[in-house]
Parts: sequence; C-alpha cells; structure tokens
Amino acid sequence: MDQGQAFAEVLHQSVTFDDGLALDCGRRLKNLTVAYRTYGALNAQKSNAILICHALTGDQYVAETQPLTGKPGWWANMVGEGLPIDTRKYYVICANVLGGCMGSTGPRSPHDDRPEEVWGTDFPAVTIQDMVRAQARLVSHLGIEKLFAVIGGSMGGMQALAWAALYPDQVFACVPVAAAAYHSAQNIAFHEIGRQAIAADPFFYGGRYWAENVIPARGLAVARMTAHITYVSEAALTRKFGRRLQTATDLTLLGDRFEVESYLEHQGSSFVRRFDANSYLAITRAMDLFDLAADFGGNLAGAFAGTKTRFLLVSFSSDWLFPTAQSRAIARALNHVAANVSFLEVISDKGHDAFLLDEPDFHKTLAGFLAGCAEHAGLRE
Amino acid sequence: MDQGQAFAEVLHQSVTFDDGLALDCGRRLKNLTVAYRTYGALNAQKSNAILICHALTGDQYVAETQPLTGKPGWWANMVGEGLPIDTRKYYVICANVLGGCMGSTGPRSPHDDRPEEVWGTDFPAVTIQDMVRAQARLVSHLGIEKLFAVIGGSMGGMQALAWAALYPDQVFACVPVAAAAYHSAQNIAFHEIGRQAIAADPFFYGGRYWAENVIPARGLAVARMTAHITYVSEAALTRKFGRRLQTATDLTLLGDRFEVESYLEHQGSSFVRRFDANSYLAITRAMDLFDLAADFGGNLAGAFAGTKTRFLLVSFSSDWLFPTAQSRAIARALNHVAANVSFLEVISDKGHDAFLLDEPDFHKTLAGFLAGCAEHAGLRE
Repeated sequence: MDQGQAFAEVLHQSVTFDDGLALDCGRRLKNLTVAYRTYGALNAQKSNAILICHALTGDQYVAETQPLTGKPGWWANMVGEGLPIDTRKYYVICANVLGGCMGSTGPRSPHDDRPEEVWGTDFPAVTIQDMVRAQARLVSHLGIEKLFAVIGGSMGGMQALAWAALYPDQVFACVPVAAAAYHSAQNIAFHEIGRQAIAADPFFYGGRYWAENVIPARGLAVARMTAHITYVSEAALTRKFGRRLQTATDLTLLGDRFEVESYLEHQGSSFVRRFDANSYLAITRAMDLFDLAADFGGNLAGAFAGTKTRFLLVSFSSDWLFPTAQSRAIARALNHVAANVSFLEVISDKGHDAFLLDEPDFHKTLAGFLAGCAEHAGLRE
Repeated sequence: MDQGQAFAEVLHQSVTFDDGLALDCGRRLKNLTVAYRTYGALNAQKSNAILICHALTGDQYVAETQPLTGKPGWWANMVGEGLPIDTRKYYVICANVLGGCMGSTGPRSPHDDRPEEVWGTDFPAVTIQDMVRAQARLVSHLGIEKLFAVIGGSMGGMQALAWAALYPDQVFACVPVAAAAYHSAQNIAFHEIGRQAIAADPFFYGGRYWAENVIPARGLAVARMTAHITYVSEAALTRKFGRRLQTATDLTLLGDRFEVESYLEHQGSSFVRRFDANSYLAITRAMDLFDLAADFGGNLAGAFAGTKTRFLLVSFSSDWLFPTAQSRAIARALNHVAANVSFLEVISDKGHDAFLLDEPDFHKTLAGFLAGCAEHAGLRE
C-alpha cells in the first residue's frame, strides 16, 4: 500500500440531526450524522427491530458487501434469511458508531467551527454511552419506540450493555457477546500500543495527515496487528501457522519471515485501506473509558436496577481479551437485581474472534433465545 | 528523549577471539568479541563456576550497577553474598549475548568486510545455539572445563536448555526459569509487532540510523511497550494502575491518559537510551527461531538423550508468555530420557516478570537445589 494514498471515500446512507448531540465529556456536537443500514422489514407494530452494534473496526455493513473492501458483511453468517438473526422475521438495523469513519460523525467529519477542515484529532472524546445515544436518535428517527433486541460482540457488547442501562424501557432483549462491563488494564495497554504506533508514524502529522493527503499506514498497520493478536487464541495462531518458515531461504536479520508474521502484515495492510487513524484513536479511547459501574459507585448491579430486559450473555472459553470471568461478573450483577439472564460459555479454541465465526453452539443458542423472547414479547410472525 | 540523540557508549570488559565463530545460518563471523562480568572467585579445582544467561533486554551486569542506566544489576536480589546464588561460594559469569549491544559482537560491531561501518541490519541472523557457542568460547578462555551450573530466565532459560543439549558433559546442573523449548506462534507475533514498529520509525533509515547519528526511539519504545505488557499479568497491571485516570482534566482525543499508559510510555522511553534497535531485531529473531526439538525430528527428548545433567525447571502460574505448560513439556521430555529433574510451579500473580522479582518460593528452591547439587558434585566450600 502506497503511504501517500488517501483514505477511500464512498457515499453512505445516513440521517443528520441538526440539533447535534451532548457528549459525556461536556462538549456538544453541533451536527450529528448517523450512517446506517437496515435489513428485512419493520412490521406494522414496529416491534420486530433488532439493533446490532458493531465492534471496534466493524461498520454498518453487517450483512452485505462492504463497499470499500468488496468483502462480505462482517456478520454475514449470522444475519440474513434463515440465519440465527433471521431477516424474514426481524428488522435489523446497524449504524456506524459515533467517532467512526464510515459515514457517521467522527474525526473525518467537518469541524463544527471550521467546516472547511475536518475534525481530525480535535474531535471530542466520545464514550460508549455517547455512541448509544447517537443510535437512540436513529432508532427514534425510524419510528421505533422499543427495540426487540440489542445485540453486539466485543465493543458491540459494551454498547448493548449501555443500551440496557441507559434505555431500560426501550430494550426487550439484550445480548452482549464476548463483552465486558469495563475495559481492563491489559486491554487499555494493548490499545495504547496501537495509539503510540499511530502517533509515531511520520505520516501522522500530529493527526493532520488528512491535510497532507496521506495516511499513517504503517502505524495503523502496527496498531491493527497488535489488536489482531489479542483477538485470536494461541491455539488458533499455532493451528494456522505453527512455526513453519514461509520461505526456507538463507536467514538474514530482516529477510526471513515466519508465516504468522506475513499473515499479520497482510491483515495490517488491508486494514489501512478502509479505516481512518483518527477514528481508531477515538474509538479505542471510548472503549478504554468504558466502566459501566463507575456511574453507580462501582456497583455494576446499580446500572441494571429494576430492569425488565431479558439478557443472554455469551463468552468464549479461549477468549483472553474479554474472558469468561468478565461475562460472569455481568451475570452476577444481573442476578443481584433479579434480572432474567441466561449465560453461555461456548467452548471454543478460536479466541475472541470466535464471536464472528461459525460457532454452532453460539448460533443455536442465540436463535433459541430470540425465539423465546419473541414468544414472550408477543411478536407476530 | 531527543530522537536525534545517539546511542550511549561505554567500555565493557571483553575477550576477542580472532578465529571468529561459525553460525547456524551457514555464515562465519571473522571476529568474535564476548563482553562479560564475573563475581566471586574461581576455586582451585575450577569447579564452582555458574554461568548466568540473560534475557532479551538484559546484559552482563547481573549483580552490579548498570553503567548506562545507573540502576542496580538486573538480578541483584539473586546474585551476591548471602543470596541464593552466593558469590562467596560460586564464581558467577555473565556474558552479553551474541547479537547484543553491550560489548559483545552484534549489529553495532564493525562490519567484517567494511570495518569502517558497523554491521547494522547486515548482521547475520544468529540463533540461541550460536549465543551458547559464543559463551562456550568464553568459558574455555576462563579455563573452565565444566560449569557447575547454567541458570537463566526467559531467553536465558532457552540458552540454559541449549547448553544442556549442546554441551551435556560441561553442565553439571541446569536451571531454565520461565522458559520454553520453542517460541510459540503468539510469542513470535508479539515480537513481530515490535519489529514492525521499529521498521516503521522514520529514524530507522532501513537499519542505517547509526550512520545518521539518530535512534528510532519511538519505534523501539513501542516495541518495548508491547513486550512489557506480555511480561506482566493482568492482575499485576490492574493492581499497579487499575483504571484510574492519571489526570481528571477534560477528555480530549490524545490529551487524557490512563496511568497504565504513562507507565508504559516511561518504560519505553527509558529503554531506548540503553538498547540498540538492530540488536532488538537480531535477538528477538533468535528467540523466534528457537525450537530445540527441531534438530531431533520434533522429539524434544532427543535433545537430552543420555544426559547426566541435573535439572531444575521453574515456571510461574500467572506467566502467560512462557506458561507452565511449556515447562511441563520440557519436564516430560527429560523424564523420557530418565534425567534427574525437579519441577516447580511458583504460585504468583506477577506474570513472566516474576523471575526477576522477590519470589521467596523460587529463591529458596533454587538455593536448595544448588546446595544439593554442590553436595553431589563434591564441591568444597
């Protein structure tokens, strides 16, 4: 990838709210645009809407071709006709998060005070809760008073939890997958590696790379590589690559390559074509700031007091980034307030990424949970 | 740290072998210098020598002030009078590894063919076994035919294992601590992040930064930060920093800092003052190439067939970089050849770094093991 190549642009379906959005940091965005996609049809009662929240580097193209990469949607195995989140039955909404780079307001949007420039690193710090508030505006705009379900994995799971905490009466069912109620010190540290790598790239220009029409591609690639390692288990890495040298040529200091290295390099470089560095900074920071119990004196149960939402928590046994213990802590807090909660630890050796992969146990459980909730909600087929 | 500041230089005690060293990669170093330090006195029988092998970013200053940092030796709590490796009883040797930057032949040494330049990234790929062969030259030079013990943690443990495999008759006791017989795919991946960060630094100049009198400080710092996270447990990170914001000021995209981040930044920046980037590339690569069983058809036991060496293996329960399972695999291979082997898993929540810290269980076990070996070896007090 040529470092001088500019970020690819496409047009996204979106809605703009001229009254902006008040942020947790105390500042206010004068304009708020939320880019989104929908699948399936909203029923007459407007009671079959499922909001899917995407993860750090995901986007709204959950079940269709991603326009920049040409690859299938990131949850194409989960959302669609006849799939666990069945678009013949449910109206599926997915929005690009606030701070993102796929059409929603973020560091690449025009600066509120200097519209001839983009925000860049001047973009205010946003939180997971801010992202959820932006989504709530979209949901209202679509005429939906109550979501049948909010579902998300990883950072999407954080959003699902925040939805249930902020809008308890507007969420019938909530499915946080491979998630946590706060970001751990280790997780923050890994994100910081990525941010430092971006800031260290000479093409970063203190965040004003857009003005130079370049991308801090190498820094962003290192950030992505770091994150990628945390998404997979040691077993998955070993199975895929083991320790085979990709080429058996004479070893030199930088010339030889283990397979895992070239794979990571490929992952890193394809990423920079579709993701904005300042968005990466904004969104990782939002994750790092997430601590749902903080507003309740450190007592997570307080976030869910009196909730009527039905919860399904899912973790994966080999996920060391959002380990099962984190989901268990959420389950305990929900039990504490007598919430309706199911908890499934899927036995998988695929690590955190398992939530995106074909995990039959996970898919069957989710489909079953949704069917049960649909019955309780009186959702007509 | 000023990026333009050159690498600090000091004079080190060393020995040079004019006949060089044949390397695993097939090339030959025309000159071999081994920088080293010794502590205590060699007895008349020359039977009380303990070789200590240092880890990735360690050096020969195991039990005295490090001349570049002014900090105590990296194992000052382990090596000295009255300490587990008691310098009143043992003659302790520690050499800077081949490929290092503290006086031994490495990327900062004069190029064999163009002595007016340094090797830089042209330095041949070295292996853990090459490091051990260089140490063996030093041990012979000191007039020692058989080491009483070889002891090392992390990469030092890899060297200890390689010593026992390459020179079984010259090692009475062998203590690999927090070690492994091969580097895992995950470990390789973390190293690759560091190498990519270094290569991405504009001050790297393709490895010829020395010619520009600069240091790829930010890339090296990111590499060190990445490695540092893998050295500590989540529990240790949380205990030390938790999620407290270091400053409670208004959040901005790059302005706020979690404590763990500023800690990591500090760790990274103090590191670049003492460590050479090309050495970091060379040594991480040597670790990544390590697979002791590879020369024996994948059968680790083959590396130790007929060994008379006494082994003590030590792992730490919260070490996720070199987990207990890796030490257990070595123990199994040693059992397979009926070797004399003790194995201790120290219960600690301090992660991989525990081998450097005050872990009473570990220290007592090592002292006891050495005392027992001394008796068996007929070592006179």
